[in-house]
Amino acid sequence: MSDVTPKHAAALVALDWGTTALRAYLLGDDGAVLDSRASPAGIMKLPAGGFDQAFDETCGAWLASHPGLPVIAAGMVGSAQGWVEAPYVETPADASALVKGIVEVTAANGATVHIVPGVLQAGAMPNVMRGEETQIVGALAGDAALEHEPHGALIGLPGTHAKWAFVFEGRIERFYTFMTGETFGALRDHTILGRTMRATAQQDPDAFIRGVDTAKDAGHAGMLATIFSTRTLGLTGQLAPEQQSDYLSGLLIGHELRGLNEVLAREQSNLAGRTLRLIGNEALCERYRVALERFGCDDAKTVADATERGLFRIAAQAGLVRAAVRVN
Amino acid sequence: MSDVTPKHAAALVALDWGTTALRAYLLGDDGAVLDSRASPAGIMKLPAGGFDQAFDETCGAWLASHPGLPVIAAGMVGSAQGWVEAPYVETPADASALVKGIVEVTAANGATVHIVPGVLQAGAMPNVMRGEETQIVGALAGDAALEHEPHGALIGLPGTHAKWAFVFEGRIERFYTFMTGETFGALRDHTILGRTMRATAQQDPDAFIRGVDTAKDAGHAGMLATIFSTRTLGLTGQLAPEQQSDYLSGLLIGHELRGLNEVLAREQSNLAGRTLRLIGNEALCERYRVALERFGCDDAKTVADATERGLFRIAAQAGLVRAAVRVN
Repeated sequence: MSDVTPKHAAALVALDWGTTALRAYLLGDDGAVLDSRASPAGIMKLPAGGFDQAFDETCGAWLASHPGLPVIAAGMVGSAQGWVEAPYVETPADASALVKGIVEVTAANGATVHIVPGVLQAGAMPNVMRGEETQIVGALAGDAALEHEPHGALIGLPGTHAKWAFVFEGRIERFYTFMTGETFGALRDHTILGRTMRATAQQDPDAFIRGVDTAKDAGHAGMLATIFSTRTLGLTGQLAPEQQSDYLSGLLIGHELRGLNEVLAREQSNLAGRTLRLIGNEALCERYRVALERFGCDDAKTVADATERGLFRIAAQAGLVRAAVRVN
Repeated sequence: MSDVTPKHAAALVALDWGTTALRAYLLGDDGAVLDSRASPAGIMKLPAGGFDQAFDETCGAWLASHPGLPVIAAGMVGSAQGWVEAPYVETPADASALVKGIVEVTAANGATVHIVPGVLQAGAMPNVMRGEETQIVGALAGDAALEHEPHGALIGLPGTHAKWAFVFEGRIERFYTFMTGETFGALRDHTILGRTMRATAQQDPDAFIRGVDTAKDAGHAGMLATIFSTRTLGLTGQLAPEQQSDYLSGLLIGHELRGLNEVLAREQSNLAGRTLRLIGNEALCERYRVALERFGCDDAKTVADATERGLFRIAAQAGLVRAAVRVN
């Protein structure tokens, strides 16, 4: 409560271990971040047997100072290509379902690492997430605005594979994966669209918004039919080479939100006037916030520290944090 | 009419000169193909000044045998990166507008090459074509089924950048460019989707149709939201690695046709029950024909020899062929 309170009791090592990076947090028994480490040791960059070494290099000192500290991890570390596979939990999935799906692995340094499973939405068009489920649990923590949404909360996680999750009473009911970020990269770097672009350090918000609006107002034929305008607007002198990348980015994010609106329309809802939350890279979330405004959605705050908070909540629900407090 | 008729009078050299290839035809005064040559000398593969050499290597012998034979060319050869730029003609554009837009260039061997312009649809979402306008003119030649469509004829040109053109009374009124082929290649070769695919020489028609149907029946959230299923159907054991490429191809073509249907819906029309024509690579047109059937369109024949026929028609309308007949 005050700086005098001994809130610095280390209670948990929490890992966000994805494909391209590892982020580690030393959390106090109130969930506060006491220390953190970032490592490029993503699971796709490790040599065989590299998990133990990367874990020890990143967290070994914490564990040496706090013997017996519990460890929890989320992300691709639990995939088939990860340290140990934590099989997907099926939707609807809440924090307690995630806890039940935790798989343990014993590290070479003796620590037991608790790996949070991903979530699978089965069916003819299956969807999977790993890591995002933990962030969603973190985002839900004490957000009254989300809890009171009559149709459930809508949470967006922009990125390479953007996710949009519908959450009701703490359960992830269903979700969508939009391959927006990766498609943007592939189109920019490996199609004719990139050839007339000129890279620039400066962003062009107007070009971005123009792309969003084009998808929103004239995107009925779909993304395959609008992206060529990146080139033809250049050919006809309406879009400078420096603007074309932001325009294409706006187009794709606009098509994502247009698609999301189609999903919402099927349940008599709409992005306009809706409260939702974003999780992810701050600059990217800001782009989405701007795009969402074009769709009439003015309440799309970015949730800070969702990963750490989610890992702490799941660990607490699993009894790991209390146990740690007792031990120390 | 019979083999005895001297129909072999050479009347025109017709060139289909695109980005990656040059196809040359020696046409008779009835439009029949007397001889043809294919060369890899696409305009993007030529050294500076390479147009003259490529033209002479491909057509020099014909011109030596038939001095004064007129020459017509269509395709990217008339672009800003081509032999000489033939500025776009704006929609609506018929054969006589194309004739008015012809630009001449004199080759090193003395021949005058008549270059057919492309077509531009101006506006906030501009569209351009080069080469397709000539194929469309060829496809219209004497096709009564097309001429009697009350809303005008619909002509599809599948490919890297697929075009769909609405033609009324011989005029190209408007058209759409779907970057389906190039997007497919970029997604397959440069995103995570390609990683679980296994290449195979054999096509899988069922996987293709499954992709088309998914886009048609469950594609309301848009292409960005469906393509990830290529991977997740694999993860969940519903799609073998050998099937994933055809599934993704079906998805993208399905989204193209879904988008086209949205365009048609805005004029109270629909692909179902409609007569249309396809121009292009035979195997690819067959894939589109199968996909169109899933949308209820059973009359989607592929037009043969549209390029040669279009070049001949435009040359005739320009008075080049009659002149040649007189000269020879």
